[in-house]
Parts: sequence; C-alpha cells; structure tokens
Amino acid sequence: MTAAVLCIGTELTRGELLNSNATWLAESLTRIGLEVTAVDCVDDDRGRIEASLRRLSAEHQVLVCTGGLGPTTDDITTECAARIAGVPLVRDEASLEHIKQLLRRYGRPELVSSNAKQADFPAGARILPNPDGSAPGFGVKLGSCSAYFMPGVPREMKAMFDVSITPDLAALVTGARHQIVLRCFGLPESEVNDRLVGVEAQYGVIIGYRASVPEIEVKVLASASSREAALDLAERAAADVRSRLGDFVYGEGFGDLPGHVGGMLAQRGLTLAIAESCTGGLAAELLTRIPGSSRYFLGGVVAYANAVKTALLGVPAELIAAHGAVSAEVARAMAEGVRQRLRADLGLAFTGIAGPDGGTAEKPVGLVHWALATANGTQAAQRVFGVGDRNSVRRRATFAGFDLIRRSV
Amino acid sequence: MTAAVLCIGTELTRGELLNSNATWLAESLTRIGLEVTAVDCVDDDRGRIEASLRRLSAEHQVLVCTGGLGPTTDDITTECAARIAGVPLVRDEASLEHIKQLLRRYGRPELVSSNAKQADFPAGARILPNPDGSAPGFGVKLGSCSAYFMPGVPREMKAMFDVSITPDLAALVTGARHQIVLRCFGLPESEVNDRLVGVEAQYGVIIGYRASVPEIEVKVLASASSREAALDLAERAAADVRSRLGDFVYGEGFGDLPGHVGGMLAQRGLTLAIAESCTGGLAAELLTRIPGSSRYFLGGVVAYANAVKTALLGVPAELIAAHGAVSAEVARAMAEGVRQRLRADLGLAFTGIAGPDGGTAEKPVGLVHWALATANGTQAAQRVFGVGDRNSVRRRATFAGFDLIRRSV
Repeated sequence: MTAAVLCIGTELTRGELLNSNATWLAESLTRIGLEVTAVDCVDDDRGRIEASLRRLSAEHQVLVCTGGLGPTTDDITTECAARIAGVPLVRDEASLEHIKQLLRRYGRPELVSSNAKQADFPAGARILPNPDGSAPGFGVKLGSCSAYFMPGVPREMKAMFDVSITPDLAALVTGARHQIVLRCFGLPESEVNDRLVGVEAQYGVIIGYRASVPEIEVKVLASASSREAALDLAERAAADVRSRLGDFVYGEGFGDLPGHVGGMLAQRGLTLAIAESCTGGLAAELLTRIPGSSRYFLGGVVAYANAVKTALLGVPAELIAAHGAVSAEVARAMAEGVRQRLRADLGLAFTGIAGPDGGTAEKPVGLVHWALATANGTQAAQRVFGVGDRNSVRRRATFAGFDLIRRSV
Repeated sequence: MTAAVLCIGTELTRGELLNSNATWLAESLTRIGLEVTAVDCVDDDRGRIEASLRRLSAEHQVLVCTGGLGPTTDDITTECAARIAGVPLVRDEASLEHIKQLLRRYGRPELVSSNAKQADFPAGARILPNPDGSAPGFGVKLGSCSAYFMPGVPREMKAMFDVSITPDLAALVTGARHQIVLRCFGLPESEVNDRLVGVEAQYGVIIGYRASVPEIEVKVLASASSREAALDLAERAAADVRSRLGDFVYGEGFGDLPGHVGGMLAQRGLTLAIAESCTGGLAAELLTRIPGSSRYFLGGVVAYANAVKTALLGVPAELIAAHGAVSAEVARAMAEGVRQRLRADLGLAFTGIAGPDGGTAEKPVGLVHWALATANGTQAAQRVFGVGDRNSVRRRATFAGFDLIRRSV
C-alpha cells in the first residue's frame, strides 16, 4: 500500500519556502505504516494540479495534499479535486458559519464574500474541521484512492492530520505498527550506521535515521499482526540497538540533548549558570527555548571580549595573558567564575575559535575548550571540531558541554 | 520554457531529511529565468525513478536531479538515466583517477572497488566535476530535455550547480534577467502584499516573497532582451517597491537584520552589550553567529533569574519589586547596567513573558519590553507579540530590539 504527498503552491516551485510540511507528512505517513514513494510539489496551475491529482491517485492508495485552500483566486485546489472526483462543488452552511464567526473575531467581517468559497466542497466529501483557521480540509475518493486535502499553514495542517486523518489511515493499514525513537549523541552518523548493520534483517524492522546535527535520531519501526506483537518486536529490536550504541544513546522519544539535561537538572534540583565566549549565547539560548527552564537555569555571561571575562567572571587578566583566552585554564576559570558569581550548583563554560578566521597552527579553527565546575571540583575537555562552518563548530561545542553535564551529574 | 526538480532518495520520501536542496534549486532556477512547475521526490526504486525521469523529461525542457550517485547498491540514478537516454554506461578514467586520489587522501584506498561505479556515465554525457566529493555529476539529453544529475550533499551540489550548470541554463534562456532582493522588517506579510499590488502588472516583473520570520525578503525579478534593459527595469521596479514600503526596507541582498545592524556598528565604530531576560541569549547568539562580530559586540548578560539582574547588572531589587521584572523600568535599568558594566557605547535589553505560562491579564504572554541605552539617554519600547509560540515571541522581540538600534544610531 503506497502513499503520495502533493504540496500545491507556486511559492514552493519557486523555492520561496522550505517545504517542511512535506517532510512532516512523509514521516507521519511512514510511521502509520504506509510506504511513501512520491513527495511532489506543483505550482498553482489548473492543468498541472489536475494532472498531478489524476496521476498520483491512479498510482497510490493514499494521497495527502496541502495548499491552495485559501480565499484568493489562485487557490483552486478544491475545484480541481472536484473535477477529478467527477462531482460538483456543494456549499456547506456549517463551514460558512464557522468562517463568518472567525472573521468577526478577527474584526474583518467584510471578507466573508471572498472567503465564502472556503465553504465549498466536492459533493460527498468528508469535511475535516479546522478549529484554528478559515480553511476546513476534506477527504474524498479519487477513483479507488483515499485523498485528503488540507491547508498549507503548518500548525493548522498538523492538527488536522493528527485529529482527522491519522485514525482513518491507521484503519486502512492492516496489522499494527509501533515506533521507538532513540536519541543519540557523540557518534558520527556513519558509525551509527556501521554499528546497526544487520538489525533490520534480524528483527524484520525498519531502521530510520534523522540527523539533527549534532544529534542523531534512530527510529525503530516494527510492524506485526497485533498491537502487542508490534510493541514487543519494537522493544526487542530497540534493546539490541541500545546495546550496540551503548551510552551514546541518551534518551528516547522527542526533545533534544539540552532539554534532556534540563530535565535531569530539574529532577535533581540543581541550578546551572553558563559562561560563553565562542558559543556567544547559543548554549543559554538552547536551554531557554525550553518552557520552564527558569527552574534550573539562572543565567549566564556572554564574555566575548576578554575584558568581560575579567570584569564579570573574575578571570585574572594574567591567566589570559599566560595561556591565551582559548585554553583549558581560562575555560576552568570561566566555569568557576560563573558558578560562583551566579550562585549556581553548576557552572559550564566555553571558549574556542569558531572561525572562519583567528586560527593558528597551534590553535586551529574549530578548537574549543569547555569546562564544568561543581561543588566537587572542575573538569575540562577540548576538541577540534574539524568539519563544518562557524555555526556547526558552535553548535557541536555546546552539545558537547551539555553531554559533559549528562555524564557528570 | 519550464523546468522540473527531481530529488531521489528513500530518506526523502520517508521524511527523514528536510529537503533544502529542492528549495535551493527551485529558487536558483527561477532566478535564472526558468519557470519551475514541478519539484518532486521519489524513493530509491528503479521502476519509479525511471518513470519519473520519463515523465518529467517529456513535460519539461530542463530537468535537474539530485541524489543516488553514491557508491552503495541503492544508488542507481546513473543506470536509470542511461536507460531513459537509451545509451550504455561508459567508464571515465579521469573520474576514476580523481576518486582514487580522494580515497587515498581519506586513508580509505580499499573502497576503490565499491566507489568505481561513480566513474560510470551514460555514453555521451558531459561530466560535471565535483572537487569536494567522490561523485561527479553529469548532464545528458533525455529526448529534447536537458537533464542534469548531481550528488545530494548540499555543499557539493550547490558548487556544481553554480559552476557547471548555471552558465548552460543561462544560455538556454532567451534574453537576460536581473533580480534585486529588498530586505524588509516590521510589516506583516499581508500588508507587504497589499502595498505592492499592481507592481507586477505595471513593470512586467515578477515579485517574489520569502518570509524568514520575522523578516520578509521581497524579490524583484526583471526579464528583458538585454542585460542593461533587465537591470534598468529591475531598478525602476525596485525603486517603486522601496517607496511603497518606506523605511521598513532596511537593506538589499542577503544577510539579516542583526547582520545589518552589526555592519552599521562596525562602520560607525560603536560597541554593543546586551542584557537578556526572556530572550535568554538569543540576541547575543544572532550577533555572534556572524563572523567578525567581535569588532562591535563586547558581550552580554543572560539575566534569567531576578537575582542575576541585580548582581550582574545592578538593577535595584526594589525596582523589580515595585514594577515587576517585566516592565519598562527594569528594561531601562538592564540596558543602562549592561552598557555601563561592559563599558559599551550601546546597551540593549529585553525582558518579557515568552510563555507558554506566566501571563496575567495585565501582563499577557507575548509582552516584551526592550530598551536601548546610549550616551544620549535611554529609550524603551514594548509590544505584545500575540501570534505564535515561545520561540516566535523571543525571535520577534530580538529583531524589534535590533530595529531600534537601526533607527537610532
């Protein structure tokens, strides 16, 4: 049983927008147990939209479409779907009422006339509610293909897919699926691959990877005749994956390493302060983007200039002169300084050369020292993050720092 | 003259990877003057790859493909291309030599046998060098369609496209094109749209948008019979766009608002320090991701806990008690404190409620106060960033702060 995704919109074929909808839908359909073999975009052209719908509905059992459900004249997806289904458009009064209410709430009641077409659907279609927006979606049979149409706004699309489409599709797929996501940090993707050779064949599962640099998500997808059997198979395969990857697996499910470390700190009742030179606020940013991080994160100092390292963190100017700002000694002093001055349980610090300039033979671009100060003392580590640009160096370094906390507290 | 993009790989149809290649290629082809009407992905299946190549080469004059040129057994793009072109594969000795050298340099000479197939090309194909990787690309005629095949690694793909394919395609397109990109901040996309109604028709140009939240890129693409005429047309249309958008246009070309403000500071010889509460390091991060930002950015304080606002920025505890941490008074004190303690020309500060929790009727989620302290005094501003999640609030707030600098210095 194969599925296709079709994203409709000239903004996509002109490359004005990164198509994150397509990736999200392809991943969601795969997780449900469908084999997605085509992910297409087409521009807002009636002939080409209809040709795409005709072709994809003939080749696949499931077709999921986004875009072109808006109120403007180039939003023609619904008309095209009705033509391919061979049915007329019919106005749905309940949807029209929803649109009127929404426009009143936004203070734009005069838009009702242009938005009214969003209440038209192919006759016999199942209407998919959109609590967050003015464009409802719909499901309709195109020949023997189950086709679904959703708005292109990611938030609205995702909610609609999860609530109104996923149960439909899960019922189409025979058997049951269970997926376990293992979160991994510290191994290159090629080595993760090497270590997992043979797992797919041994268990009959699908191993998927997603690199969210510098982390890797390893997805174990098991299919079986019953929910229990799928769960059991996924768990056995995941246990093998865990043992092959060892303690490079730091967690399961969604979230990232900073969030995982934040959760550890919250659980243990520990507070953290961060001093950053080359990472320039990135480590603090990665923590504070997590809701509730104020429970464990007190704050930090971005000590970009050396004078700031001395004034705000108490790093002796002589230490910087003796070893250079990029040194284990200065990283330690920064970690201890920020821990003490912010009265935190843990002090984490970074100093390095993110590039592209500023490297020397002795201290090349990519060299970062990081240190963790605790009540029991201070430990430091270093590495040359050799592949990648300035932001890759900074990102890899901050994750290495969080990993040091994970392995230490 | 229409063009299509085809990205080949099961990792794409399973949604394991955000397809940034497709967006980049669609944008590049549009800029060259081609009308891109299809951007497709297909999995690593011989039958489906060949069907896609047959269909897209029949429907378009230009086809640009990525992926499936690697050394593993599921890399079958070259074989499929040769079958559709109706020609045999021929080994290219110069490419084989390049691959051997590369593998020796990486210390993996034993891989030559599996990588050798990367030196096979459809007979008569033009080989496109890949200085950075082991997979050369190639260009080949599929019927009357000019088809190009490139590796999926973004860095290698982009270099190959710019160096080896762009000149080819520019020669295919009659006339000349010139594009001007205007960078805009502070207007919602719908209002930018409204203000530019009629520009396309008046000048015969294409207006494209790219929202890179919270900024908007407005692209003015002019086509004419000569280079000079295209340049002139683009400039006339862009001048009209500028006058319609007023001082919401802050710059031209690539880069973002933080980078633009950084450039202004460098040019004027001014230094900046930043104090952040709700933005949690994001403002510092946006500046320090720019190479050379140490010329104007001294550092900052992430004062997440109130005690840190007092200890490191000298914000009186009584001021916080009287007005609350989220207030114009505290924003001003933070800006003045960070300016003074870091001995900077400018001090910028943010305090607010990023959410999802912590809002009240008086101070709702999304409320942010920001302030700019200079030698001439301190100014503050505030806004409720109402639509979007925590990170959207933080991002919009930091950009609003940088915009205050742009309009003040």
